[in-house]
Amino acid sequence: MEHPERDAADPTPDATAEPGSGPTAHPPLDLGVDAAELTARLVDFPSVSGQEGPLADAIEQALRALPHLTVDRHGNNVVARTRLGRAERVILAGHIDTVPIADNVPSRLDENGVLWGCGTSDMKSGVAVQLRIAATVPAPNRDLTFVFYDNEEVAAHLNGLGHVAEAHPDWLTGDFAVLLEPSDAQVEGGCQGTLRVLLRTAGERAHSARGWMGSNAIHSAAPILARLASYEPRRVLIDGLEYREGLNAVHIEGGVAGNVIPDACTVTVNFRYAPDRSAEEAIAHVREVFADCPITEFVVDDHSGAALPGLGHPAAVDFMAAVGGTARPKFGWTDVSRFGDLGVPAVNYGPGDPLYAHKRDEHVVAERILHCEERLRAWLSA
Amino acid sequence: MEHPERDAADPTPDATAEPGSGPTAHPPLDLGVDAAELTARLVDFPSVSGQEGPLADAIEQALRALPHLTVDRHGNNVVARTRLGRAERVILAGHIDTVPIADNVPSRLDENGVLWGCGTSDMKSGVAVQLRIAATVPAPNRDLTFVFYDNEEVAAHLNGLGHVAEAHPDWLTGDFAVLLEPSDAQVEGGCQGTLRVLLRTAGERAHSARGWMGSNAIHSAAPILARLASYEPRRVLIDGLEYREGLNAVHIEGGVAGNVIPDACTVTVNFRYAPDRSAEEAIAHVREVFADCPITEFVVDDHSGAALPGLGHPAAVDFMAAVGGTARPKFGWTDVSRFGDLGVPAVNYGPGDPLYAHKRDEHVVAERILHCEERLRAWLSA
Repeated sequence: MEHPERDAADPTPDATAEPGSGPTAHPPLDLGVDAAELTARLVDFPSVSGQEGPLADAIEQALRALPHLTVDRHGNNVVARTRLGRAERVILAGHIDTVPIADNVPSRLDENGVLWGCGTSDMKSGVAVQLRIAATVPAPNRDLTFVFYDNEEVAAHLNGLGHVAEAHPDWLTGDFAVLLEPSDAQVEGGCQGTLRVLLRTAGERAHSARGWMGSNAIHSAAPILARLASYEPRRVLIDGLEYREGLNAVHIEGGVAGNVIPDACTVTVNFRYAPDRSAEEAIAHVREVFADCPITEFVVDDHSGAALPGLGHPAAVDFMAAVGGTARPKFGWTDVSRFGDLGVPAVNYGPGDPLYAHKRDEHVVAERILHCEERLRAWLSA
Repeated sequence: MEHPERDAADPTPDATAEPGSGPTAHPPLDLGVDAAELTARLVDFPSVSGQEGPLADAIEQALRALPHLTVDRHGNNVVARTRLGRAERVILAGHIDTVPIADNVPSRLDENGVLWGCGTSDMKSGVAVQLRIAATVPAPNRDLTFVFYDNEEVAAHLNGLGHVAEAHPDWLTGDFAVLLEPSDAQVEGGCQGTLRVLLRTAGERAHSARGWMGSNAIHSAAPILARLASYEPRRVLIDGLEYREGLNAVHIEGGVAGNVIPDACTVTVNFRYAPDRSAEEAIAHVREVFADCPITEFVVDDHSGAALPGLGHPAAVDFMAAVGGTARPKFGWTDVSRFGDLGVPAVNYGPGDPLYAHKRDEHVVAERILHCEERLRAWLSA
């Protein structure tokens, strides 16, 4: 998951992946243990981004032992499917990588039933639930596709789900997808889009003692900041979920030296937008907001589209009834957006607590893992 | 001199001072040659800031040979004075250091009478004129004080003139001072003050997907930039010279990460002000301009006061008559301000071209050196 403060406020975890922990160092995965115990074993099987090979091997091996599943592999991404000819197909997806270990492996179950360790929340508990459903629901009421993918915690172009979508889009067809990212066992529908744009202003250098000889690019950014300060973000209701947009400067930089009129300034703005806007509409909106500002360059620096919650789909309605609770909007960006791009409505629903993802004190309530497993099984067995 | 673009746009000269070029490597200074030839010899006697010792030795030695002068030394600063009991005392001052040599030593006189090399403009041509006046005007109409000081091209606290002013203020008493900094052989009166202030705004971090949970420090800087953009700088006439003030952002910085609402932003503003404002008044003015902006910290980062041109002083009037031309205001900051602090009206008047100071292609028109020497001699001998 994209963590609230992942670029910034968290202590940087030590980049101490376990070297030499190849497949031989671990026993095969036993899918007969419950999802909480399986989570602990997955945490003790390190798989920092870029080093998922051994875990992908173990998952592939465990799934190939299940006769009701067809198993495919692309890189370190494993896809397993039932082929029961059901009217609907549901995808259960999760990434198998973690952020770097931060002195928090092996896992530890405390006396309050809390499991601690790297990946407990984000998202080996979700992966454990996927594996348990794969192993224990051989004849689901909907055809199932299990997706285990790599490199979610790193640059978007490395993302395994994206690679599978590009190489084998047929592996990802379906009517509805559940991404088992940490969501406190609450359903989070769709996700907002996130667009980052660089707004550049230009000027002309001069000695600041002769300011009138130049033109100040920082002063030219004044109307940009004024627009941002007065911007009224939209709130919009989609499938009963209220999305709150936001347009913010996340960075500003300009200046040459203490005695020079600066000839360049860049304001980086981040637009978080509701899923009723397309990617193109989002860009057009930002252009419009700053239309009368003296911007010399408008650069789309980063863009990940939004995903509609899709809660109106019959499979989603049944899903909501089975898992209970009230769906919430997802504000951060997750891979549900990739499913959105594939035309598959998707939600986040996982046992982890998003507030502890990527933290040194990452943990998950064991009972909640079992709860998620039980709710999904109920939905798929009814 | 503080060069227009010294912090920024100039190619950085190689820091290749000449090692081992101690006093033994150079013949004693012969003050019998003309000022242009003497300039060439001074350029060929490297004295990058911090390495002025040998040149200070040579200057001291040459001056001690002149019976009409009393010579004092403080560090690598040499002060020589006549004691004729004249009604007025005039100071001729110049720094003996240069910026690092940039493949432009030894000096070279081309067929057009242009002398090339490090320090030709800034300001060994001025120093040569000082030395020639010292040597050739044994009975001036005003008592004379010659100041040769070190470390002008580096941090202000190293400045030799400042050190002398602190240790021996009596060496620097006088009615009028001429600083032989490059000024195209035009009189530049006084100098503007320069004040640099950091204006900080604060906010509260939050994930940019939930911008409403935080408070954006960059947006809070909007009114600061608005004030700057609409600021109307004052023009003021002092002693017939028009000073143009300026208030400019010279730097802006804020931002934590691409997905975080920033909690801090700093706008650095530079106020260049006319010498009818005191240092305190300058600070008060900047405070007033931004009085209604949400500034959490106002930090005076750097401040050098202004200096009045003092062109109304009788010595200055005679000086203007002798050197001719029309005085111009000095916009950059120079050591005339230090004389201002000592209560000595001061002007810049030197043969160098300020546009070529600190440049690899630094040069001076030889004829202009002789002109300055001749004009000063005329003023002091009349």
